[in-house]
Amino acid sequence: MKNSIFSHRSIRKFKSKGIGEATLRKIINAGIRASNTGNMQVYSIIVTQDPIIREQLWDQVHFKQNMVKQAPVHVTFCVDVNRFHKWCEISNTEISYDNFLWFINGSVDAVLASQNTTLEAENEGLGVCYLGTVTYNADKVIQILDLPKGVIPITAIVMGYPDEDPDLTDRLPYEGVVHMEKYQDYSLEAIKNIHKEKEESEFYKNIVAENNVPNLATVFTEKRYKKQDNIHMSNAFLTVLKDQGFFNQ
Amino acid sequence: MKNSIFSHRSIRKFKSKGIGEATLRKIINAGIRASNTGNMQVYSIIVTQDPIIREQLWDQVHFKQNMVKQAPVHVTFCVDVNRFHKWCEISNTEISYDNFLWFINGSVDAVLASQNTTLEAENEGLGVCYLGTVTYNADKVIQILDLPKGVIPITAIVMGYPDEDPDLTDRLPYEGVVHMEKYQDYSLEAIKNIHKEKEESEFYKNIVAENNVPNLATVFTEKRYKKQDNIHMSNAFLTVLKDQGFFNQ
Repeated sequence: MKNSIFSHRSIRKFKSKGIGEATLRKIINAGIRASNTGNMQVYSIIVTQDPIIREQLWDQVHFKQNMVKQAPVHVTFCVDVNRFHKWCEISNTEISYDNFLWFINGSVDAVLASQNTTLEAENEGLGVCYLGTVTYNADKVIQILDLPKGVIPITAIVMGYPDEDPDLTDRLPYEGVVHMEKYQDYSLEAIKNIHKEKEESEFYKNIVAENNVPNLATVFTEKRYKKQDNIHMSNAFLTVLKDQGFFNQ
Repeated sequence: MKNSIFSHRSIRKFKSKGIGEATLRKIINAGIRASNTGNMQVYSIIVTQDPIIREQLWDQVHFKQNMVKQAPVHVTFCVDVNRFHKWCEISNTEISYDNFLWFINGSVDAVLASQNTTLEAENEGLGVCYLGTVTYNADKVIQILDLPKGVIPITAIVMGYPDEDPDLTDRLPYEGVVHMEKYQDYSLEAIKNIHKEKEESEFYKNIVAENNVPNLATVFTEKRYKKQDNIHMSNAFLTVLKDQGFFNQ
């Protein structure tokens, strides 16, 4: 039995070989075993293998990133109170999960399921890449995957047999992200030290040079995640939350 | 090497024995290995072992649930753009993650880290229980753990050596939560079938009887998660999001 936790890397090149049905089912069942709020399972998992639908997602949602088109299996993890509300309907009880709290509860549940799915896929020799883009263009996901009111995508992964073997990615020092007892706020000196190794690595120095900006933080704020885009996507996702019925409060 | 994915159960009774430092560090490092948005790590992990702080969390946040007081280690996973913004400050670049998008990105990252932490803890023979209550009383968590602007708790776990060995909990049938290709909306007949096994089990029949309500769905809507509480907690959490600086858009 493999433990894939410490060997996880995002895989962005896949072989064309699909995933067998039994393996796929085992992997998704791993997701379902994760903890969830009150064991109500207010999430849904959508497994997409159809090349036409996957191409729509690649084109309209995921900024045409290669690995999205290449990977044979695309899995979308959604908050889902639609199923629960229909159960309330046939049980003659009140519809009461149409609010922000249940978006949060369902989000946590769906993301826990996604990580179990990811790790079990890796245990089975598959490679996985998370797609944060699913929330940037949630309205398009809703259209393409026919998500009804009460359902919102919160994360997605693609998976398949890996056709690359990248190194582990760097992380900030342990003390930079872990706090003992309470939050220990950072002095500007501490912030400098936490990012020192990263900023001095050849890998990131090259990225800074290629982007023609003064430092690494600016790569993120001016090149990759610009303020105007962040604001646009924040408002777009809040609109989706309202449209899908999570703001009846 | 154990694979704890398929054997996970929430543990609510713990031995008093603490977790050794090396083991604890390995477990938290497992969390840090999880995927995260753009490798910016916009989360923080707070490890609380001090009995006084743990008692405050038990009392003011987690509705005095026994296992919260009993477990020797309490871990809170937070969205954190404070560290990133301070890095922007010393890098002379714009502060631009103070919006809803980065609350979502940080939430997904923090929850992925929490599930790696949980599974590795279980691989080490520990038991874990998730605490959804952390978002219900996020304002209190912020006070107790000194969370600055830009930091919000999104999930928490307690862990320790288990003093019980419960059965796996039930789940809805696979087809009830997994959709192939696109979302297949449910007929009311399908909803009935999906919940049939659960509703007919002795375990849930007893819960319905004890609660003196007509059916299981009503246990959830009228006893455990009442509409007025859902609305109250939705608005409280949105206020926390505003106060912590995630709505500058």
